[in-house]
Amino acid sequence: MLDMPKGFRFFTVSAGLKYKDRPDIGVILSEGEATAAGTFTQNVFAAPPVHIAKEMLGENATMRGVVVNAGQANACTGEAGFADCREALRMTGEALGVPADKLLPASTGVIGARIPLDKWQAAMPELAASEADAIDFAQAVMTTDAFIKVSSSTVLIGDKEAQVLGVAKGAGMICPNMATLLGFILTDAAVEQALWQDILGAAVSESFNRISVDGDTSTNDSILALASGASGLTVDERSKNSLSMAVTKVCRDLAHMIVEDAEGGTKVAHIHVYGANDDAGAEAVARTVGHSPLVKTALYGQDANWGRIVAAVGRSGVEFDPMDVSVSIAGVTVFENGAPVPGDYDALLKGKLSRKEIAVSIRLGYGQGRFNMMVSDLSHEYVSINADYRS
Amino acid sequence: MLDMPKGFRFFTVSAGLKYKDRPDIGVILSEGEATAAGTFTQNVFAAPPVHIAKEMLGENATMRGVVVNAGQANACTGEAGFADCREALRMTGEALGVPADKLLPASTGVIGARIPLDKWQAAMPELAASEADAIDFAQAVMTTDAFIKVSSSTVLIGDKEAQVLGVAKGAGMICPNMATLLGFILTDAAVEQALWQDILGAAVSESFNRISVDGDTSTNDSILALASGASGLTVDERSKNSLSMAVTKVCRDLAHMIVEDAEGGTKVAHIHVYGANDDAGAEAVARTVGHSPLVKTALYGQDANWGRIVAAVGRSGVEFDPMDVSVSIAGVTVFENGAPVPGDYDALLKGKLSRKEIAVSIRLGYGQGRFNMMVSDLSHEYVSINADYRS
Repeated sequence: MLDMPKGFRFFTVSAGLKYKDRPDIGVILSEGEATAAGTFTQNVFAAPPVHIAKEMLGENATMRGVVVNAGQANACTGEAGFADCREALRMTGEALGVPADKLLPASTGVIGARIPLDKWQAAMPELAASEADAIDFAQAVMTTDAFIKVSSSTVLIGDKEAQVLGVAKGAGMICPNMATLLGFILTDAAVEQALWQDILGAAVSESFNRISVDGDTSTNDSILALASGASGLTVDERSKNSLSMAVTKVCRDLAHMIVEDAEGGTKVAHIHVYGANDDAGAEAVARTVGHSPLVKTALYGQDANWGRIVAAVGRSGVEFDPMDVSVSIAGVTVFENGAPVPGDYDALLKGKLSRKEIAVSIRLGYGQGRFNMMVSDLSHEYVSINADYRS
Repeated sequence: MLDMPKGFRFFTVSAGLKYKDRPDIGVILSEGEATAAGTFTQNVFAAPPVHIAKEMLGENATMRGVVVNAGQANACTGEAGFADCREALRMTGEALGVPADKLLPASTGVIGARIPLDKWQAAMPELAASEADAIDFAQAVMTTDAFIKVSSSTVLIGDKEAQVLGVAKGAGMICPNMATLLGFILTDAAVEQALWQDILGAAVSESFNRISVDGDTSTNDSILALASGASGLTVDERSKNSLSMAVTKVCRDLAHMIVEDAEGGTKVAHIHVYGANDDAGAEAVARTVGHSPLVKTALYGQDANWGRIVAAVGRSGVEFDPMDVSVSIAGVTVFENGAPVPGDYDALLKGKLSRKEIAVSIRLGYGQGRFNMMVSDLSHEYVSINADYRS
């Protein structure tokens, strides 16, 4: 059951940009001006919609909505991609009666392909007439995701309440050039832009920035957030924790769903690193383990192969004493203070490794640095999806 | 046809350390004192044989030989692993009539497993009686490599000549905890230790340090080099280039064979990055592209998927202007100055991508920085090997 924030409307249409007979343009509209925030990919080849959305957020604290298409990422399209993005916004604004410079763009799809603007234009009357909801919108932004990704949470401050809704898409199942992470966070709380941006940034760093399917950062990753204020609840610096917790909860839910729906993925591994000298060191270790093909294939094979985990820890570039390191898998300590734990942990772990969610805990020493992340495994299906789909 | 350096003898035995009826201990012995050098893994969990070999090279400029076993990596074995390694050297030295502190150790095999010293001792008489050659030795250090890896080259200075021989093992085909790179370089040139170490280090950085199968650095990687001087040719600072070129050539041959024999590999991709601001930037880009699962699965699928290459370039953390970037695959320019090259390069590349060796060339801009490396692709077979073998 989703809690819906007030003040937002949804529109979708099947424009046939790439797919036939399925929605591929989705719009979220705020009834009034909504405080806007965003976080974006660090990829140098950030797509035109990413550049344009960043520029718009720098110029305006409020927006009226977001316009998303699936089919073309509009990335690596040169100068033409910028013009295409602005023209698509202009058409959409005209159709919905909203200034184009108040609509944030986001695109997902094949890199290098241009958006067919003729099809876009032809679909505008139907888009404007559509009466969609958040679920319809979540379907329209999917490329080859196996399931829609939505989550909500409630903010209670005194006797007032507001809702937070999140929608995301993850890595596709058939067309992996589309492996773009898009997320949309809506609330009907009222909040100033700087604080809204802070709350979003903190939530993203606790959620979307702590997942990995294959370590390949897309050109289009964008999280866009709108706060309509329609609930009558105003959040300020003093009361921000409640909204921050709700946004972080929603982002974590969506991030978990993205790993769950990873291309070919059969597992969600929760990697916890602690006892590092600092958080950055813990993060480097977690990311090295989480990106290791040998660790990821062992997870897929349900193999208690701690040697691969320890070897990845050792090549992370972080300094520590190997004799202080301990590793547990699914709660069973297999390596302690630099040496294997005697005992038949293959037998101990047998039933546990067939589970979908696996905890991998790594203690580096006795410092305060810690980091946790979620990663998928590496399966035959991942190779099939990514090797075979264009051939 | 291998050119054999003078002054070396080879010994092998099937000790049954892990495998049945195949050689698993190999020894190279120099008839006299040989100048010794080595390069080793940077993994914090470097195995006891790595620590002990480094320590020996620090104390002595000359060695009598190397002792290698396959089956147990003797890594992550705690203090016991150090004692096991020293005891194995003592037994071998006694059997061959050589001081144990003149024999460099190297191990490859399963992480966490201890060497069965009783089997080692029992095999010593047969080892000492064996009359092996370099090919036998190359077979004894294989774990699950598909083929032996040997190369040789000749050094000519004035009217004197010397030979360089290299033997290596790479990633296994069935037992990937054994994915250890071991290399052995022999010459009958005479050369001082500091210069020999310089020559080896430069050759390794041009060869073994520029390959990747899965980005997982082993705990046991070691390259050990012995110069017997038996040819009568002495190499010094002034004449070093000839030896350096021969050693580099041999190391490159072996590195290429290791990528060719990568677990499940069907391709060798030669990634060239140039026009970077400096070599380090070019290297970061090459490694990001070369480790990308999406690029590696596209190579396997013979898919001219330049979008994945460009996206990997963009997330490498290196600064450049995206509008200066060009990419060619198998000699066909597919992306130029930040935009796709018009034309049907899928058709142009069709026949070329089925080849085993594929060149991927990436120009970042107009600087002098460059780097090249060789990587394998990512196949169904890689996942099978690494997910299934223990279950």
